[in-house]
Amino acid sequence: MAKITTRAENYSEWYNQLVQQADMAENSSVRWCMVIKPYGFAIWENIKDVLDKMFKNTWHQNAAFPLLIPKSFFTKEASHVAWFAKECAVVTHYRLKNDPDWKWIIVDPEAKLEEELIVRPTSETIIWDSYKRWINSYRDLPILVNQWANVMRWEMRTRIFLRTAEFFRQEWHTAHATAEEANAEALKMLDVYRDFAENFLAMSPVVGKKPAHDRFAWALETYAIEPMMQDFKALQAGTSHFLGQNFGKAFDVQFTNQNNELEYVRWTSRWVSTRLIWWLIMSHSDDNGLVLPPLLAPYHVVIVPIFKTHEDLEDIMNYLKPLIEKMDNTSLDAHSKYIKDSIKIKYKIDNDTQKTPGWKFHEREMKWVPLRITIGKRDLEAGKIGVFTRATWEKVQMTVEEFSQNMEKMLLDIQSLLLQKNKSFREEHTYYVDNYDEFKEKIEQWFVFAHWDGTAETAEKIQEECKATIRCFPNGEYIRDANEKWVDMISWKESECRVLFAKSY
Amino acid sequence: MAKITTRAENYSEWYNQLVQQADMAENSSVRWCMVIKPYGFAIWENIKDVLDKMFKNTWHQNAAFPLLIPKSFFTKEASHVAWFAKECAVVTHYRLKNDPDWKWIIVDPEAKLEEELIVRPTSETIIWDSYKRWINSYRDLPILVNQWANVMRWEMRTRIFLRTAEFFRQEWHTAHATAEEANAEALKMLDVYRDFAENFLAMSPVVGKKPAHDRFAWALETYAIEPMMQDFKALQAGTSHFLGQNFGKAFDVQFTNQNNELEYVRWTSRWVSTRLIWWLIMSHSDDNGLVLPPLLAPYHVVIVPIFKTHEDLEDIMNYLKPLIEKMDNTSLDAHSKYIKDSIKIKYKIDNDTQKTPGWKFHEREMKWVPLRITIGKRDLEAGKIGVFTRATWEKVQMTVEEFSQNMEKMLLDIQSLLLQKNKSFREEHTYYVDNYDEFKEKIEQWFVFAHWDGTAETAEKIQEECKATIRCFPNGEYIRDANEKWVDMISWKESECRVLFAKSY
Repeated sequence: MAKITTRAENYSEWYNQLVQQADMAENSSVRWCMVIKPYGFAIWENIKDVLDKMFKNTWHQNAAFPLLIPKSFFTKEASHVAWFAKECAVVTHYRLKNDPDWKWIIVDPEAKLEEELIVRPTSETIIWDSYKRWINSYRDLPILVNQWANVMRWEMRTRIFLRTAEFFRQEWHTAHATAEEANAEALKMLDVYRDFAENFLAMSPVVGKKPAHDRFAWALETYAIEPMMQDFKALQAGTSHFLGQNFGKAFDVQFTNQNNELEYVRWTSRWVSTRLIWWLIMSHSDDNGLVLPPLLAPYHVVIVPIFKTHEDLEDIMNYLKPLIEKMDNTSLDAHSKYIKDSIKIKYKIDNDTQKTPGWKFHEREMKWVPLRITIGKRDLEAGKIGVFTRATWEKVQMTVEEFSQNMEKMLLDIQSLLLQKNKSFREEHTYYVDNYDEFKEKIEQWFVFAHWDGTAETAEKIQEECKATIRCFPNGEYIRDANEKWVDMISWKESECRVLFAKSY
Repeated sequence: MAKITTRAENYSEWYNQLVQQADMAENSSVRWCMVIKPYGFAIWENIKDVLDKMFKNTWHQNAAFPLLIPKSFFTKEASHVAWFAKECAVVTHYRLKNDPDWKWIIVDPEAKLEEELIVRPTSETIIWDSYKRWINSYRDLPILVNQWANVMRWEMRTRIFLRTAEFFRQEWHTAHATAEEANAEALKMLDVYRDFAENFLAMSPVVGKKPAHDRFAWALETYAIEPMMQDFKALQAGTSHFLGQNFGKAFDVQFTNQNNELEYVRWTSRWVSTRLIWWLIMSHSDDNGLVLPPLLAPYHVVIVPIFKTHEDLEDIMNYLKPLIEKMDNTSLDAHSKYIKDSIKIKYKIDNDTQKTPGWKFHEREMKWVPLRITIGKRDLEAGKIGVFTRATWEKVQMTVEEFSQNMEKMLLDIQSLLLQKNKSFREEHTYYVDNYDEFKEKIEQWFVFAHWDGTAETAEKIQEECKATIRCFPNGEYIRDANEKWVDMISWKESECRVLFAKSY
């Protein structure tokens, strides 16, 4: 296992090497598509498990809608097509056959579909096609349904987890009787995303709503959480949309309200995807390898017994029995307000005889484990084990009992440490600016809060000249000074609010 | 909610109406594809959760491989193409565009793929393409990887859960250094399927291996579990294959063994799919609706409070508080040997004021809940609640304390009852036959064990004349009499074994 390129040398190359060396994913032979390897997929499963529980605890249910969508569905609403890229996988035929020589397989020209089918780039059209059948009266509402699914967009410049043709995500499309209820749902589920980001991903995002020119097509409001990456860029993660009746109208989905009148249904939607893994890597990892918040790690504890003979190993394993039993019965509680279940301790005993302890140490530094234990014959006599904390590179000796008693706290402390680091990093790189020259300088390495006149023109000028965008109207107190003047730094017109500017992905 | 057609009237129509009335799934607007609705999907999630834990407890890991497979991959092994139907969805283009009038979307003729991509009908080719990269030495083996994924086959005659173009499944493709290890894996994981069938699906299959002429392409051995449906037909569910080196050769996957020699890798594979839901329905349900084994049911207990005013409801809910608390802390333990986790009690309090108690009762009879509780104001005074067991249609009165103490046992008793019913049904419809005339008669409504000479000709003759096939060489003791003659009932040649014949799906 070799060292990887440092972030300072080449940030993008560091990422690629890390993904490869930590054995998370690889490019597949199908250009533009990735293979998520078991270690990377375990992280996605942990993310999915936690989110799914949060969704269910807020009364949402899962369902499955078709992978393929008739082409005509995409023309029901022109703005919908305008929004998502038209780069999609198009199914035109439904049969293969042997060529006349029986050597190759060809597409059977006779088996052409009457209407082409598109591998879903997103599912609202096909989901609302079902909702139309499900909704008649206000009694059928709300519909709080989520789907975990693979989707596909024909991305030419791919990067594993960030941008590939096929990726995995959850998508939520909820239907409501009233605008108030729908908007409340959009806000509540944004809070679920925020809670997940802080308490599981160990990231501290700015929470807010998008400016009108940057809303999702049709949305009356788009809410978002915006954390800062290690290169000072913002990432729009977990947007939540309140979309009013536009989709209800486009798909002609009406319901009879309590006064027996017909009304169009209100809609909200949102999603997060395997991109969260990219986000995790970019936020916490370092030049030595992957760093993960313990609550989402595939393993919490890896034990490396140091032994020469099978008897040595047996003695060590006997000595560790009480610890193993304790780990089997220990769970970690997150601070989340949306999840009741705690997360079971997952551990691995790495007693592989083909690999040296040094190799195992290095592997775990690269692939990450919050706590690594080493124990040899001599430690047995001394009654101590070695405990290494990868997040701080601290190595201490303690008794098995001490470790048993403290491991839960040690793991949760690492979880807090990562969140605190992420929060401090963002806060230390947040600046309040009132003039454009200073803005141009600070925007390179800072989240900048500046006043904005609310016009798309100003936003465009800044985007053009500084490659920065308005990330959101922050939710909460981001005013520097109670007496400050509310004027735009460029147009000197009245400002709507101090908004968050940043460079972004 | 209307009554459904009875099984006696029309078995196939009974199934369709049941799926619809129990709100499990529907046909989508994409011909040949289904929508799995939240209630049906909850059952699939329960199945998936249990199986996934069993897989992980036997040291398997999950991963994700691409949805689209290059056409050329299917020609690497001609027999592979011969095996799976060539009816697949073929992606030929990667972009849509607006037509010149900007009114419609058309497929961009410029965006034609150099090589067509197939929506996976099965994944061995693309998975082994990765394995080839992962395997160099015996140290890289075994690879015990599973994938949960949607797959697609262009089925023209669809039936929800049984046969649709898109369906969901797990597929396992494991790689091993030795034939012994691979065969042991195939057998062990067949036992996992058997354990799941008996202890969760509440079905009692015959376990065995397939005759040579009915093996999966390339398989050196195909093992299967064969339960009996309510119409006396066998269903091949959960096959497990030991495939030797054929795939390793086709894909040229070699490894360096401990003697430093190159060898081809051994392979096993198996899968189960959403078809299990079809199987569940066909095995347990009745003319009144869905019947599910409690361990896989979306709800274990539904409480229907009978109330006129909000105050009544509040009194009832206060009275039930200790029960709710008990349910929140109660789990069900399965008899399985592969799973340690127990299943949390899931309950629903149906206090909807729009629906009458009668409507709610009927809904639960149709959609299934193992235990239904009714409680009104008068019951509060009498200190009793009504407990209805849908599996037996028994209604009893008991105190809340009695119910709290017994619910776990009551639920597990229903689980056992369903398994026992399924087992008895199969055993009562199993017959030992030694002559062909009797065979022809019995095969209509029985699992028949008869001697077979091991030739494909005899098997074909029986299939042609009786529409019955050899389901398996049973694993275990299915010999009627220690002194019986081992001769084929048709050819009078020496018999290989008493094998299981049945009509099947």
